[in-house]
This record gives sequence, structure tokens and C-alpha cells, in this order.
Amino acid sequence: MSLPVAVDAMGGDRAPGEIVAGARQAADELGIDVVLVGPPTEVGDTGGLDVIPASEVIAMDEDPAHGVRRKKDSSLVRAAEAVRDGRAIAMVSAGNTGATMASALLRMGRLKGVIRPAIATPIPNLVSHPTVLLDAGANSECTAAMLVQFAQMGAAYAAARYGVVDPSVALLSIGEESSKGTPLVKETHEALERASGLRFVGNVEGRDLLHAAADVVVTDGFTGNVALKTLEGALKFFMGAILGTFGVDDATKQAGDVLLPHLLPIAETFDPDTVGGAVLLGVDGVCVISHGSSSAKAIVSAVRVAHDVATGGLVSRLAKAVSES
Amino acid sequence: MSLPVAVDAMGGDRAPGEIVAGARQAADELGIDVVLVGPPTEVGDTGGLDVIPASEVIAMDEDPAHGVRRKKDSSLVRAAEAVRDGRAIAMVSAGNTGATMASALLRMGRLKGVIRPAIATPIPNLVSHPTVLLDAGANSECTAAMLVQFAQMGAAYAAARYGVVDPSVALLSIGEESSKGTPLVKETHEALERASGLRFVGNVEGRDLLHAAADVVVTDGFTGNVALKTLEGALKFFMGAILGTFGVDDATKQAGDVLLPHLLPIAETFDPDTVGGAVLLGVDGVCVISHGSSSAKAIVSAVRVAHDVATGGLVSRLAKAVSES
Repeated sequence: MSLPVAVDAMGGDRAPGEIVAGARQAADELGIDVVLVGPPTEVGDTGGLDVIPASEVIAMDEDPAHGVRRKKDSSLVRAAEAVRDGRAIAMVSAGNTGATMASALLRMGRLKGVIRPAIATPIPNLVSHPTVLLDAGANSECTAAMLVQFAQMGAAYAAARYGVVDPSVALLSIGEESSKGTPLVKETHEALERASGLRFVGNVEGRDLLHAAADVVVTDGFTGNVALKTLEGALKFFMGAILGTFGVDDATKQAGDVLLPHLLPIAETFDPDTVGGAVLLGVDGVCVISHGSSSAKAIVSAVRVAHDVATGGLVSRLAKAVSES
Repeated sequence: MSLPVAVDAMGGDRAPGEIVAGARQAADELGIDVVLVGPPTEVGDTGGLDVIPASEVIAMDEDPAHGVRRKKDSSLVRAAEAVRDGRAIAMVSAGNTGATMASALLRMGRLKGVIRPAIATPIPNLVSHPTVLLDAGANSECTAAMLVQFAQMGAAYAAARYGVVDPSVALLSIGEESSKGTPLVKETHEALERASGLRFVGNVEGRDLLHAAADVVVTDGFTGNVALKTLEGALKFFMGAILGTFGVDDATKQAGDVLLPHLLPIAETFDPDTVGGAVLLGVDGVCVISHGSSSAKAIVSAVRVAHDVATGGLVSRLAKAVSES
């Protein structure tokens, strides 16, 4: 029997209801083994899924380090331990992002040679598989050596998740020229040009993120998080503005009905619930971070991603990518 | 007679044709005095507008410092000199952004007490006047003291351009909590809380930029440029994707015709050509930077902004804001 994906039943704004529903759906529809982690009395009807008991919950707004240190019997910590102990193939949480990272890092440990783990987030587009953006927020401060490792890990991840052969890697900057950007960006540009085993294609700008300009885009966690939230905000804003025009009068309502079937696939492509969550790269196990307002659908996507990359050998690919540098 | 706005006829991908057309249109339609700057033989039919002669042109991709140092008779340098010498009330260029900044800084000089000038860019929204984002790219590296000055200058600019009384100022970060972000962001957060004469409302995230979360949003020039280009890219991408659905078949074409009148005002609001260009704050004169692919319409908007903020006393407001700190 294959190992299950451990889902933190208590993580996220809509936990445990939507999380448990998503876990059940993933098991039913995808045939993936799933185990829930949380207080058995609060998890509700698991539909036959096993539960790893955990009596505590780390709140969404709780200090991550404090929460993980104090709440050793929390659903997040127990989920990470299940991966460490070989009882789960991967963990999924929509809870406190900082605490998820801390749990994974403290319980699974860092992969040998990894300076700092990074969050890899898929940015969808309409022409190809998503672009992997990292770091999307784990490390506000980075060095060039860290960014080169992010490039190596991002490339290994693009290979494991999307089957990309020899992934292209770009550096996020404010111009294509290597002379543009912060000292960190300039130093990283040079280091990426020298790095062996990487197909570095140069700098890209914020406007290139939705155009599949590269398989992997590397940046520090502060810039990456700002870019990602700016994109998410813009998507939500424009979709809302456009849908708003459908309700102006009867004519626009009818026109909206005609266009909706053509707009939905676009909205679906960019829906965070479809994309499948971010992955923490650099820890000795698979940890998928779903967004805080995850619905059941988001959890299904996250479980699918967790299962796919875990069975695709993500961790050994990452270890290899980092050790070969 | 009032002083004219000096327009660099040779700056931009579509110069001189669209630039001269825009300058003429601004003079005709807005009744604003405009003077063109460039080689008289290349400017073409000015429609009666005066020309300040300049024999050289700094190319879009030329090294800014080198260009400004070597080409003393360039249209950019002469436009900045016209402002310095009191022959123009403001300058407008769609040319090489770095060279525009360097020309303005070297010829007009820095306002007393200003550490570094910053580029202030309007981010439109659907509920209020645009949010002023700065720095949008002048300074890749910033200190907290610089960011506090950007806040002061941004507030003075929001007052001069949009008539905002007691503008709210926010700091771009990756979470609302003051503990989030880079060391620079945390230090700046504290400094902004202490700064007198500023209505600091805390941190905002990338997703807040289109929601009029504050009158002014402050950030370093690297992050600001990434956020701005990400927004511009997302807008263009989603507008393109939506317009694409209108051409699927006859039914979607008809539906598109019904919706277009309702979508156009949204597109117009966010059209860079309507917004009116960025302003370089901190130099002793008004310098409006229009985007590189500016059309005649963009130049009309830029001339209007240049005229409005110059006659609104922008420079003295900026000097006062910085000296009072």
C-alpha cells in the first residue's frame, strides 16, 4: 500500500469544514490515499479517512516560531512529523504559512547543502505550463548564493512537476540589461551566468511573468511576494471589473451569458484554487502550502500536487541539484 | 504671457511624429503653451509651435550618464536647461528614462535637503484619484531616510496633483504587521511612525495597489518598478485575453459589441496614455517622464500634468515638505 498525503485538517480560514471536504474529495476522485491530522472530535465526518490525532491548533495569526515551539501536539507539527517518520509521503496545509515552514524545517530538516528553503509558487499563463516563481516569501533577505540555489531547486521542481527537460531560468529585475537592478541582482546575474548545469536566460521584468518567459523565475522572497500579490490582486480586480459590466442591464446580462463560457477557462487557469499551492523547496520532505482561504477544491489541487511531486521523486531531485553545484 | 511646457520632440519610440502631434494637440485642445525641443529640420511641421534648437539626440538604449555628459546639445539636456533658465515652466520627455533623470538632476539641480530624487507614478483605481507610488525606479538602493523623504514628497505631490488634503501614506510590504519585510522595510515603518507631518497608515501589500488603499505608497525603486511593471503586464494581459474572447464567433462578436462601451471606460482609466506620466520629485523644476511608447495622446496627458503641477506650485510644496521635516 502506498503512503498517504497528510492533510492538516485545522489549517486555513475555512478549516476544518472545507479542508476535510477537500481531503475526502481528493481520496474519492483522484484515488490518492489521504490521512487527516487534527483533533478527532473537531475533524467531523472523515468519510472513512484515517486521522492522525493532534490536540492543538496553531492559529492563522499566531507567531510562527512561538507556535511551533510551544504547540508540539499541533496539527501542523504532527503533519510534518508524519512525513519525517515515513507515515506520509507529503504534507499539505492551508494554515499559518510561517508556522508551516517552521514545522517542515524543524521536523523534516533541511536537505544537505541547502542554505535556506524557499517557497516555489506556480504562475499560470495561457500558452504553456506555469512559470515557477521562487522565492515567493520565505526569505525577505537573500544572498546571491541563496538565489543560485533557488535557481537549481526551481529547475529541479519544474522538471518534477511539469516534466520540463532542461528548464530555462531567469532572474527578476527592472530591465533586461545585466547592469540594471540592486547590487544583489547584479551579483546574482553574474553568478547565474557562471553556474554550471543551469540554463540561465537572463533578466526578466514584472510584465513578463504572465507570458511564460522562462520555466523558472528567481528572486528574493520580498520582491517575489510583492510581485505575486500584485499579480493576484490585479487578476481579482480585473475579473471583478469585467464581471461587473455584465450586470449593467438586460443586454449586458445576455452578452455576459454568451461570453462567460469563453471567459471561464481563463478564470479557471488563474484561479488560485486550481493552481495547486506552493511548495517549500529545500526541506527533506514534501510540504505543500495552500493559500489561507483554501476551499475544498484548493485542497484537492494541493493533494494532487503533493502526491505527484512526491511520487515523482522531488526530494531526491532537489538533493541532487544542490549537491552537484 | 505664461511660460510654456518644453517637450522633448526626439524622446520615445515614436518620436518625433507622435510627440510633435501630441504637443500640437495639447496646445490646440488644452490651450497650454508648448515649446518643442529638437533639431528644427527633424521636428517637421510644428503647427506654429516654437522650437528650442538642439542638434543631438540621446538614444533610448544609450548609457544615461554617458549620453548626458557627452551630448550637451541634446534635446533632453536643452529641455532641462529651458526649465532651469526660466524659459519653460516644466519639461516632458518620453525618451531614455535614465537620461531624463540625469538631465533634470544635473541641469535643474536637487532641491535643498533632498537626498535623492524619486519617480512618482500614478496607479489608477475605480473609486478615487490614483494612488501615487514612489519610488518607481530611480533608486534601486534606498535607505529609511530616503523613504521617509519619498513619503513627504509623495504627500506634497498628491496634494498638488489631486488636491488631496492630509494625504494618507502607506509602506509597501509583504504583510500588514510591522514585523514583516526586509530590515529596510521594518526600519522605515518605525521611522514613518515617528515622522511628524505625515499621516502614516501602515503597511500595504501588492494586492492593495488597485484599491486606493492609500493616497501615497512608498517603496524602494527596485520593488516599486517590479510592482508597477507587474501591474502593467497583468492589465495588458487580461484586457487582451478578454478582448480575445470577443472574436471567437458571431455570437461572441455581438456580445462584445454590447459590452465594449462598458469596458472601455475601465480600459481608459488604466491606459498608460491617459494616466499622464510619472513625475521626478526632488529636483528644482518640474520633469514629467512619459513612457517610451508614448502616443500623441500620452503626450497630451503628460503636458496637462506638467502644466497643472507646475502652476499648482509643486516645487515649492516639495521644498517645504522636505525642509519641515
